[in-house]
Amino acid sequence: PANKKLLMLPGDGIGPEVMREVSHILEWLDRRRIASFDIGQGLVGGASIDATGLPITPDVVDRAKNSDAVLFGAVGGPKWDKMGFDLRPEIAILTLRRELGLFANLRPATVLDPLIEASTLKPDIVRGLDIMIVREATGGIYFGEPRGIETLPDGQKRGINTEVYTTSEIERVARVAFDLARQRQGRVCSVEKANVMESGLLWRQTVTALGAAEYPDVALSHMYADNCAMQLVRNPRQFDVIVTGNLFGDLLSDLASMCTGSLGMLPSATLGAPDSSGRRLSLYEPIHGSAPDIAGQGIANPLAQTFSLAMLLRYSFDMKEEAALVEQACLAVLEQGLRTADIMQEGKTRVTTMEMGAAVMREL
Amino acid sequence: PANKKLLMLPGDGIGPEVMREVSHILEWLDRRRIASFDIGQGLVGGASIDATGLPITPDVVDRAKNSDAVLFGAVGGPKWDKMGFDLRPEIAILTLRRELGLFANLRPATVLDPLIEASTLKPDIVRGLDIMIVREATGGIYFGEPRGIETLPDGQKRGINTEVYTTSEIERVARVAFDLARQRQGRVCSVEKANVMESGLLWRQTVTALGAAEYPDVALSHMYADNCAMQLVRNPRQFDVIVTGNLFGDLLSDLASMCTGSLGMLPSATLGAPDSSGRRLSLYEPIHGSAPDIAGQGIANPLAQTFSLAMLLRYSFDMKEEAALVEQACLAVLEQGLRTADIMQEGKTRVTTMEMGAAVMREL
Ligand SMILES: CC(C)[C@H](C(=O)O)[C@@H](O)C(=O)O
Ligand SMILES: CC(C)[C@H](C(=O)O)[C@@H](O)C(=O)O
Repeated sequence: PANKKLLMLPGDGIGPEVMREVSHILEWLDRRRIASFDIGQGLVGGASIDATGLPITPDVVDRAKNSDAVLFGAVGGPKWDKMGFDLRPEIAILTLRRELGLFANLRPATVLDPLIEASTLKPDIVRGLDIMIVREATGGIYFGEPRGIETLPDGQKRGINTEVYTTSEIERVARVAFDLARQRQGRVCSVEKANVMESGLLWRQTVTALGAAEYPDVALSHMYADNCAMQLVRNPRQFDVIVTGNLFGDLLSDLASMCTGSLGMLPSATLGAPDSSGRRLSLYEPIHGSAPDIAGQGIANPLAQTFSLAMLLRYSFDMKEEAALVEQACLAVLEQGLRTADIMQEGKTRVTTMEMGAAVMREL
Repeated sequence: PANKKLLMLPGDGIGPEVMREVSHILEWLDRRRIASFDIGQGLVGGASIDATGLPITPDVVDRAKNSDAVLFGAVGGPKWDKMGFDLRPEIAILTLRRELGLFANLRPATVLDPLIEASTLKPDIVRGLDIMIVREATGGIYFGEPRGIETLPDGQKRGINTEVYTTSEIERVARVAFDLARQRQGRVCSVEKANVMESGLLWRQTVTALGAAEYPDVALSHMYADNCAMQLVRNPRQFDVIVTGNLFGDLLSDLASMCTGSLGMLPSATLGAPDSSGRRLSLYEPIHGSAPDIAGQGIANPLAQTFSLAMLLRYSFDMKEEAALVEQACLAVLEQGLRTADIMQEGKTRVTTMEMGAAVMREL
């Protein structure tokens, strides 16, 4: 088959370190002739600001558009904290989501048995946890207009943002959730604040209608966002797939991740709409940040980036077996007792980023 | 001193049951001549809908405005789930907040030692937890215009809500937080999404300026709302006072409550601005809902409503000693091992709503 075009955007902080370990896996897949990649690299975030003045350049956006998948590291750090609102490192992520039309952010929250103690929640509450949160990522209050800060006649200021969702924006992301549910436990929980927001009311009505019309086999429930935040702590295993808007998804997906206790382990995918040939733009990234405090020390956990590659193989390259292989290798390494600093536990063996990467390679 | 005017709005579900237990405490305060109350009653929520067609009548709103404090129960239930957007039971709460100008919602999240096991979080994480969340309650996306659902030319629908905050709205709620911090550990964490929302950026700038100008003695920090959701699960004890907008406050305060594990225990206060005579309108309510599933069985936990009365005595009637007395009575009863069904644990004594109320009275 034709070479798969992959764009790597390591970014800042620990991004490049953890990305390096993933490169070895790609080389291995190549060497084993399992797949052959055409790999590009680009700058994003602070690294791009330092080189070009912009958090992401139009050239990098173009290359991302022409790739079969983007593997993203992490961006940001104290060095760029004082940048203006439109020049922050995070703009790189928001720009890619918007420009590539990556509207469906998939955020799995899973608890692996060897790491069950990492959670601040009691083991009985999180054992076997396996939630998929589907967060809308190109709409809502993140991008709605009007927005800005204006000065009123009396000298006061007024900050404005607009939450806006259309039927079709809601439907396309709900479809992703329903489709995923069919491959999982067949349950979708749609989350909004329909009791106080009309945009949430439209969200609920639209998801309800779509579910009844096209997914009668999927069990659909609805929950207010405040209650969902509570339920994620009270009994997270009640959920299979959660679908929600951009802002609630931001909070709830991070909350669900923290319930697992191991942010350093969790990947994410952000998908666009398939075109006529079935090709869909997509971006994969670990959910952890650039962790500037530990960057360059070689102690970061490369597993979230590795799981992100596994998601990439599964969702973008339809390489389900290889994805499972990579995931199993990570699990095996954990079962052997290897731990990077962030997930270190008594009685386990502490390893560096490179040692963890090498151990995964050995398993493969 | 003149009689204190108190308006009781028990509402629906378990509201009336738990309110009844609180009445006994008020009678006791009256009998002991500690204070003398002029107590009114009114309908809200479903009870008001059934009687008048409205979730709250202008008459009840007026009486609330003319009271020194409102003690609210809970509203809602399946019977009124199909009401239109503007006729839902919750409208009673939103109307009271708006009409009385109750802009500062105080949500304590505390873990009492006897109930530490009720949390799904590990005891080490929540022992001694004592957070005060100050949530803005009359602004933001809950009330911002434009709002609504419109039909587009192509037949699609579009739901819109507007997040809007002015400098003065931010300042007055931040002042409440700073003032509370001075009576606590002297730390305020201000929470928004300044990295994606201009309204959040204005929030951050305004709180920063106010803190520097008027509260240099209070340690101010800032956190993004997604990170705050995570930190509440990772290490909730890092917080003293949190101040945030209406929507984030809705999620984060419920999340913090759930971290304590005992929703049936937690009160809240919602305060207006003091007028020239120092009088400030105020409403107190338990954070639990109307729990229609257990209503009428006499098994609801009256302690959150009781703690709400304690907050009322403290904040509205300046009766700090009596407030402490009521709180200590609740704690003593828990230490004796009495538990309503919601907080029942092995080896403890299960009691009804009335038995719990009577036990508190005995302590007093
Ligand atoms: C980086 C930031 C803009 C982003 C967001 O708020 O969406 C991040 O928190 C995320 O969840 O991907
Ligand atoms: C009843 C409802 C409108 C309300 C809200 O969303 O603010 C409730 O959840 C609360 O937190 O007081």
